[in-house]
Parts: sequence; structure tokens; C-alpha cells
Amino acid sequence: MNIKITGIGYYLPEKIETAKELAPRIGKTEDWIISRTGVKERRISEIDVDEMGAIAAKTALKNNGKPDLILNASGVGKQVIPDTSVFFQKQLGYSGIPSFTIHATCLSFLVALNTAATFIEQKKYKKILIISADRGIRGRNLNEPESAALLGDAAAAVLIEPTPNNEESRIIDFTMKTFPEGSNLTEVRGGGTNLHPQDIKTTSDDNLFSMNGPSIYKMARKKVYDMIKEDLLKNNLTPNDINLLIPHQASHLAIKAYSKYGGFKEEKIVDIIAKTGNCVAASLPLALALTYTKNQIKRNDLIYFVGTGAGLSAASMILKF
Amino acid sequence: MNIKITGIGYYLPEKIETAKELAPRIGKTEDWIISRTGVKERRISEIDVDEMGAIAAKTALKNNGKPDLILNASGVGKQVIPDTSVFFQKQLGYSGIPSFTIHATCLSFLVALNTAATFIEQKKYKKILIISADRGIRGRNLNEPESAALLGDAAAAVLIEPTPNNEESRIIDFTMKTFPEGSNLTEVRGGGTNLHPQDIKTTSDDNLFSMNGPSIYKMARKKVYDMIKEDLLKNNLTPNDINLLIPHQASHLAIKAYSKYGGFKEEKIVDIIAKTGNCVAASLPLALALTYTKNQIKRNDLIYFVGTGAGLSAASMILKF
Repeated sequence: MNIKITGIGYYLPEKIETAKELAPRIGKTEDWIISRTGVKERRISEIDVDEMGAIAAKTALKNNGKPDLILNASGVGKQVIPDTSVFFQKQLGYSGIPSFTIHATCLSFLVALNTAATFIEQKKYKKILIISADRGIRGRNLNEPESAALLGDAAAAVLIEPTPNNEESRIIDFTMKTFPEGSNLTEVRGGGTNLHPQDIKTTSDDNLFSMNGPSIYKMARKKVYDMIKEDLLKNNLTPNDINLLIPHQASHLAIKAYSKYGGFKEEKIVDIIAKTGNCVAASLPLALALTYTKNQIKRNDLIYFVGTGAGLSAASMILKF
Repeated sequence: MNIKITGIGYYLPEKIETAKELAPRIGKTEDWIISRTGVKERRISEIDVDEMGAIAAKTALKNNGKPDLILNASGVGKQVIPDTSVFFQKQLGYSGIPSFTIHATCLSFLVALNTAATFIEQKKYKKILIISADRGIRGRNLNEPESAALLGDAAAAVLIEPTPNNEESRIIDFTMKTFPEGSNLTEVRGGGTNLHPQDIKTTSDDNLFSMNGPSIYKMARKKVYDMIKEDLLKNNLTPNDINLLIPHQASHLAIKAYSKYGGFKEEKIVDIIAKTGNCVAASLPLALALTYTKNQIKRNDLIYFVGTGAGLSAASMILKF
């Protein structure tokens, strides 16, 4: 699909919380946090997801004109109704632009990027703004040290347009698989019809993030390994052909697995987890945006996005930037 | 886009609550409820959205084989994470099928149908299952009589496939517009990062449906009127060319407006609100499913879907069935 990313923006809140500061609040040491999760510090947002996303979006939109579709691709919304895309549009000062949400937890950005590309290829829209903004800190459970030590706040946005005739930017491949046998491995059980906030049975733990790190890692490593093998084979590529591997920033261990088991050289793998933590759906576009801003991405580079999300789902995309 | 709806199913819970039964709980009379909302009775589900949706999906899938994509197109999820598509897949006994959520509140089904059609046209998927399941009763606020008297529980599902070469089924047009100046007219303010369930500021009202019926009606009537005019003009159609108008079942007044102001004959307008209420995102596919089941839809009929959703968004689709 011939689409080009014509704008990229991000928002990292100013406020930093270090592993040392968090350690006593979760009953662990700084060393435990760093060795277990790789997260040395994270950002904590004092504004809500709609404002965070709009800041990132303004950078992505700069000099590019008004979008004709706005997609929210976050992990957790501002509120149950309306969906967060409406609040992004409100913050951006627009009215009349169609907007809706695509939700696949940590994979929302990849799914939205693939969907947006399909719309553009089909000539339905010409300028699609995709925004991921997550405040994992708002939902972290200090009684669950590992997930509490992983989460961080961030937002990122991209603008997608048709590729000009003489250029080569395109999505080469996209794959997604969902395995509901892993549905209880990453959860916020509350907030919906199951354990409604007004339900007397709903506990405070139900309203907060819950992750079974070791079980996710075990299940995800196998699923992702198989997906990488298939992707490369199907597209006649080797790890050496990929210029940059951008994984979801699930955990330090998960990112390391791409070099340890996946056959990718460590210097090609984008690893921002030490400074930002796992920013839920914002992690993938944030990793792209930070790398792009440091001039480490050139046009026509082959970027390979890979990740897992609650579900458990695994997804990947090969993008000629 | 050449897509054909090859399967349709629905689930209406057995338990009925009449206007007479609800009246004393909201401090109103049976007559007030019926004249204000048109809802004589509604269904109340004793199973959660995932089970409701799976029952509807099994009918839609009957003899049609396994889907290659599952889209949740509901108004409110089972829980915050993972998204509800995962739980639909789990209830259906599948594993490995990509699944995610499209959320545009009451318009989720139309947006998902348009997105699914784009995927099929692009040959990305061949058999897409779309499920809308909503338990509005779980979130109704008995202190807000009008919205409490409107809501009902239901689920519906459709299966979409490429149109066989010698057939004519297709989506002729789809339009959506979002106007964030109406973002506070229909809300569940809680459940996300704004008024988190654990936030001391969050009230029980924040966790429940809130609708400003008269303001929505005033804003929606104008937006929908303009949209209908544009749709018909653009596609060179008159109201007489449309075999069936399926509106979102927002309220009796909203449905009546299509004949009163829209120029459509009353007998062409699907009105199920008296028996089922406003079933949030499930209303549109439920209206399709109930009409189809009564043999009131023929192949090649022109169906015109129109509706509004929280946001405020307006959307429409012209479908050659």
C-alpha cells in the first residue's frame, strides 16, 4: 500500500519519576526495578490524554494542512463515551472531521496505521491523523510491583498521505493474530459491563492494570518468533535487510529477545524503555518519533514494527519509510 | 465496494421490563415514558456482552465457515483491557484470528461495516465478522429519567464477504462527520483517565449514561438533514429510490423526524424502539437483523442507514443488499 508518513510528533511530560523514587512506594529496591523491567525513569503526565495527544498531533500536522480523518489509537480512553478521537479533535480546534477509535491495546497504533493505509489506498481519505496517548500511571497498581514499575505516560502522532508518484514509501506487509487463551494475562478488568464501577463486587484492583509478566513473556516469545520467521520468509527478507526494528516497549527482557532469539543486531533495535517505560499504545509511535527526531531514519529505510498486546495479540508491519 | 452480507444474527435477552415496571423506579408514569421516548418495553440481559455477542455471531456464521477477522463494534466494552473482540473470539472457541475494536459509540457498527468493506475490497480479508453487543441497562442512571427510559440490551452480528461476480451487492456510499462541540451531550464520563474509578472526585453519576436529549435532537436534526440531502444529491437518488431506511434507534422523536422532515414514507422506516429501546451500537444491526428475519429485505434492495452517536457524530451508508 502506497502511503507515506508525512508528519511525526510526540509528547513526553516534563515530570520524571526515577526508579529510586518509585522503589519505596512498591516495596522494592531501585536495583530490583532496573534489573526486572529495565525502566530507569518514566514520565508522569499532569494533563489528560486528549491534551497530550493534541500536542503530539500539532507537531505531526505542522505545515501539512487539516486532516480528513482522525483516528484515536490509544490503549485506554479519556472516558467510556464519547470515544477519545472526539476529544482530540476538540483540542485541535476542528469540527466536522470524521473521527473514531481503533482499539487493540498496545497494538492500537499498528492496527490503525494499517487501517488508515487501506483507506488511503482505496481513495477514501487523503490525510489521516493517527494519535496514541496513554496515561498508564493513572491506572498503575502499586501493589503489583512489576507492572507498576513498567508503566509510563506519553503520546505520539503521525500523519499519513498517499505516496507521491516518484517515491517509494509503502507498507510492504502487515500481520496480526489474536490468541484469547491469553486474555487474562494483561487486564484492566473494570470500567465496562463486566465489573462496572458501580458494582459492589468491583475491587480497586479491578480498576487498575494487572499483568502477568512471566506468562506473557513465555507465550509472546513463541508467537512473535513464529511471526518474524513467517514475515521474513513471505517477503523474501533476512534480518540484515531490515534497517530498524521497532518493537513495542513491553519490557527490557522482551526487547532483548529480538537480538537474543530473533537474529537482529542489537544496534538495529530501538530500545527507549530505560527512559520512558512501557507507554501502552503510545510506545510504538513514540519509539518511531524519537528515532526520527534524532535523524536516525532515512527515506526508503525498511522499518520492521513488531509487538504484542493484551489479548494476547501479536502484530507486525514492514514499512518502507 | 463489492461486499455482501452473507450472515445476520441477533440476540434479544428473554427478560422484559415494561414501561409500567420502570415508571416508579424513575419517578415518572408509564404514559410519560411512552410519550417521551416511545419505549414500551426493553430487554435486560443477565449475561455479559461477550456471551450476548457470541450468540448473535453464531447465527451469522451458520454454515459460513470461520471468519478471518473479528471486529467488535459496540458502544461500551466488557472491560477496559483487553478490548471486547478478544472475548468474542474466546466465546466462539477460536484462536489465532486477528481481532480488534472499532469504537464510535452508537455508530460503531456503520464505521466497522465501512472499514470491513475497505479491507475486503483491498483483498486483505475475505470473511469478516462484525459484532455489536451492548448492555446499556448496566450503565443507566435512574436519576436521569429520559435516558434511563430509553436504554435497552441487545446484540447483533453480520458476516461480510466479497460479492460473487454475477451479483450486485455493494456499499454505494458512506459518510461520517464528527462535531466535538456536542461532546458533552452524550457521555459516560468515568471509566477512563479523566474521571478514573479510583479518583476521589469521580461520582456515581460519572460512571453512568448521561444524555441531553433535547439538545442532541436539536443539533442532530440539522446535521442529519444536511447529510441526507447531500447523500441523495451526490448519488442521484430520491427518497423513493430507497427501499428501506434503517435509522439508529435514538428515540421515537428522532425516528419520526425521518418522515416528518426527511421526506421518507413512514412504512419504509424501520422503527423497533417500542419493543427494544435504544440499544446503543447494537440498535442499527439489530434493526437490520429483525427486518431481515421477517423476510422484509430482498437482495438488491437499497438500504439507507443513518444515525448519530456521541461526539456528536453523524453517519450514513447506502447499501445495495
